Amino acid sequence: MTWERWLAEQAEARESSALTRVLRPRAADDATIDLAGNDYLGLARDPRVVAGAVSAARQWGGGAGASRLVTGSLGLHADLERELAAYLGQPAALVFSTGYHANLGVVAALADRDTLVVSDAHVHASLIDAVRLSRADVAVVPHDDVDAVRRALASAGDRRTMVLVESVYSVLGDAASLVELAAVCEESSALLVVDEAHGLGLHGPGLVASSGLAGLPHVLVTATLSKALGSQGGAVLGPQAVVDHLVNRARPFIFDTGLAPASAGAALAALRVLVSSPDLPVLVQQRIRDLAASLGVEPSVGAVLSVPMPSPTVALAAQAAALAQGVRVGCFRPPSVPDGVSRLRITVNAGLSEDDWSRAVAVLVAVVKEHAP
Amino acid sequence: MTWERWLAEQAEARESSALTRVLRPRAADDATIDLAGNDYLGLARDPRVVAGAVSAARQWGGGAGASRLVTGSLGLHADLERELAAYLGQPAALVFSTGYHANLGVVAALADRDTLVVSDAHVHASLIDAVRLSRADVAVVPHDDVDAVRRALASAGDRRTMVLVESVYSVLGDAASLVELAAVCEESSALLVVDEAHGLGLHGPGLVASSGLAGLPHVLVTATLSKALGSQGGAVLGPQAVVDHLVNRARPFIFDTGLAPASAGAALAALRVLVSSPDLPVLVQQRIRDLAASLGVEPSVGAVLSVPMPSPTVALAAQAAALAQGVRVGCFRPPSVPDGVSRLRITVNAGLSEDDWSRAVAVLVAVVKEHAP
Repeated sequence: MTWERWLAEQAEARESSALTRVLRPRAADDATIDLAGNDYLGLARDPRVVAGAVSAARQWGGGAGASRLVTGSLGLHADLERELAAYLGQPAALVFSTGYHANLGVVAALADRDTLVVSDAHVHASLIDAVRLSRADVAVVPHDDVDAVRRALASAGDRRTMVLVESVYSVLGDAASLVELAAVCEESSALLVVDEAHGLGLHGPGLVASSGLAGLPHVLVTATLSKALGSQGGAVLGPQAVVDHLVNRARPFIFDTGLAPASAGAALAALRVLVSSPDLPVLVQQRIRDLAASLGVEPSVGAVLSVPMPSPTVALAAQAAALAQGVRVGCFRPPSVPDGVSRLRITVNAGLSEDDWSRAVAVLVAVVKEHAP
Repeated sequence: MTWERWLAEQAEARESSALTRVLRPRAADDATIDLAGNDYLGLARDPRVVAGAVSAARQWGGGAGASRLVTGSLGLHADLERELAAYLGQPAALVFSTGYHANLGVVAALADRDTLVVSDAHVHASLIDAVRLSRADVAVVPHDDVDAVRRALASAGDRRTMVLVESVYSVLGDAASLVELAAVCEESSALLVVDEAHGLGLHGPGLVASSGLAGLPHVLVTATLSKALGSQGGAVLGPQAVVDHLVNRARPFIFDTGLAPASAGAALAALRVLVSSPDLPVLVQQRIRDLAASLGVEPSVGAVLSVPMPSPTVALAAQAAALAQGVRVGCFRPPSVPDGVSRLRITVNAGLSEDDWSRAVAVLVAVVKEHAP
C-alpha cells in the first residue's frame, strides 16, 4: 500500500469514528478560565516562576547547548536536582528534558531481557513505551490489584523484577496502594517505580513521601516539572547508585540536549514557592472536595475530577456548553479511557481567584445538571 | 539477582573499562572557550534569542500547562511551526518537546508491523529507539550505501517502507547521499525520513532544501531546536497529511506537555536571526574549512571536526591539554564511535569573536601536533 493511501485510510477511519483531533492554539490574552490543563497550583504564570525562567535565560542562554554529558550540564541543573531530592526526601535526583524522557530512561536503563516488569493497567503511555524499549517481559495487572502484583512477581523466577505504578492516576484520579505495593516489592526484592506526575505538588512532596516510603532503596520516583511545577522537564529520584547508572545508561538522558535553562529556572522557582507555601496544596485539595460535593461526584486524590457522561456526544456537548460560558474543561472519550466511559475531565486549579473559582463552579454545576441529570 | 548487586556489577564493569561517565556542571561565568557543544551558530546566548525566551516566558508563563491537544497549544507554537515550515520549504511542521520526541513520534506513528524500516548504520539513538517502539522489522544497512538501501527496499514485498538517514552524521561529519536516496525511495514508494539535527542552520534551511528535495511528498524532515537554534525542542516537517496523522497518533506528542514558552520563543527568535543573517552559515563553514586545514584533517559537512587519536588514553590526554589552555573539546571513545577509533570532537562555532577563535585554533593545532603527530 502506498503511504498516501495509508494516510488517507487512517484519516478516514478517524473521521468515521468522530475521533479526529485538531490543534486549537490559544491566545496569550485568552480570558477563558482554564480547568483543563495540569497547572494544578497555578504556578506557570506566577510572577516568581516567570522571574525564575527570565533570570535563567539571561544567565545561561536560550538552550543548554549540548547533551548533559558533554557541556550541557549547568550549575542550574545541579541546583534543581539537589533541591528536588531534598524536597521529595530522596538521596539523589536526575533531571531529564521531559517527564516522558524520565520514564523511558529509568525503565529502559534498568530493565532488560532478564527482567520481568509488572505494570498497572492504568499507567501512562510513557511507561508503556518504556517497557517496550527495555525488551523486558511485561505482565499487565488489573488496576491497583496488589494481590495480582504479588502473584505476577512470584512467577518471575530468577529474573530481576520491577513494578510500575502512578501515585495518582490521571483518568480516574485514584491513588495507588503504595504502602502495600512497597511491602510486596520488598518481600520479592522488586523495584517499585512510582510516577508522581499527578502527586507532586498537589500533595506537597508527593504520596511516596507522605506514605513514609521516601528514601527506601527499592522505591524509585519519577516526576514531571510540567504539571504542578508549571514548567517543562522530568526527573528520576532515588538512590545515588541508580542515578549514577542512569547517567551512564539512560539513552533519553545521554543522547539529548540538557533541559533548557528557562525551564530549569522556572521549575526551581516553582519548587521554592512550593517549599515556602504549604498552604497551596491545602487550597487545591479544599477546592477539589468542594467541587466534588457540588457536582455530586466522588472527590479525587488527584486534581482531576471525572464526571461520567451518558455518551461521547453528550460529553462533547457539555464541554462546549461550559466553554460558551467561559470555562474550559477537558473531555475524555474512547479510546483514551480505560473503561470506555466518556467523561468531563475537570482540573482544579489553586491559581484562580476566589471570584473566578466561584463563577467556574456555578457554570459547571449548571452544565452537569443539564447534560447528566 | 538483587537490584543492588546488579547495579554494583554494572558500575564495576564501567570502571574496569574506564568508561564511567560523570556529570560536570559548568558555571554561568565559565570563561572556557566551548568547542564541544552543539550551539553551532552561537545563538544560545545571542541577545535576540535570550530576548525571545524572556518575552515568551513573560507573555505565556513558565510552562505550556497541558498537552498540545488539551490546552497546551499556544499561538506561539503555531507561529513557530508556520515559520519553520516556511524556512525549510515544507508544507507543514509540528513541534515536539525534544528532538528525541520528534524522531520517536514520526517513526512510531507511521511504521508498524506492516512496515519495513531501512536504517542507516550511523543514525542517532532516538531513531533506533523509535524503530523499536514501532514494532516494524528493521534492516540496518551499511553507512550511506545507496545500493544496500535499494536492495533492502526490494525485499519488502507488500509492506510499506521507510528509510531513516541523517543529512549530516554527527560522529564523522559526513553528509548522506540525499538526492540518490530520494530517487531510490521514490522508485520504491518508500518514505525517506531525514534527520536535519546537524544540517539545519549550519546549511541555512538544511541539506534537504539545498538539495532541491524540500516539499517532495515522500521526503520528511525531522529537526532539533536545540543545536543551531540554541534552544530546546524538535520538529517534524512534511506534508499536511503527515502532520495531521502525527497530531492524532504520535504518542510522544499526544502524551506530553507542550514545549515550554521560553524554549519556543528562543527557537523562534533564533530562526528569525537565521532568516535575516545568511552570513552566519557562511562564517561557520569558513571556520570549519580553516580549522580542518590547520589540523590537517578533511573538512566536514557538519560543524564537527573529528581528529583521530592513537588510543582512548591519548584522546583523553589531548582533551585535558586543550582544557588546561582554556579550550573545551569533546572526546569520542568506544563504544560511542561506530568504527572503534577514538577521536577529538571539535565543534566549530560562529558565535566566538575573531580573537577567541584564533586563540582556540592555535591551542588545538599545538595539542594535536603533540598528541597525534
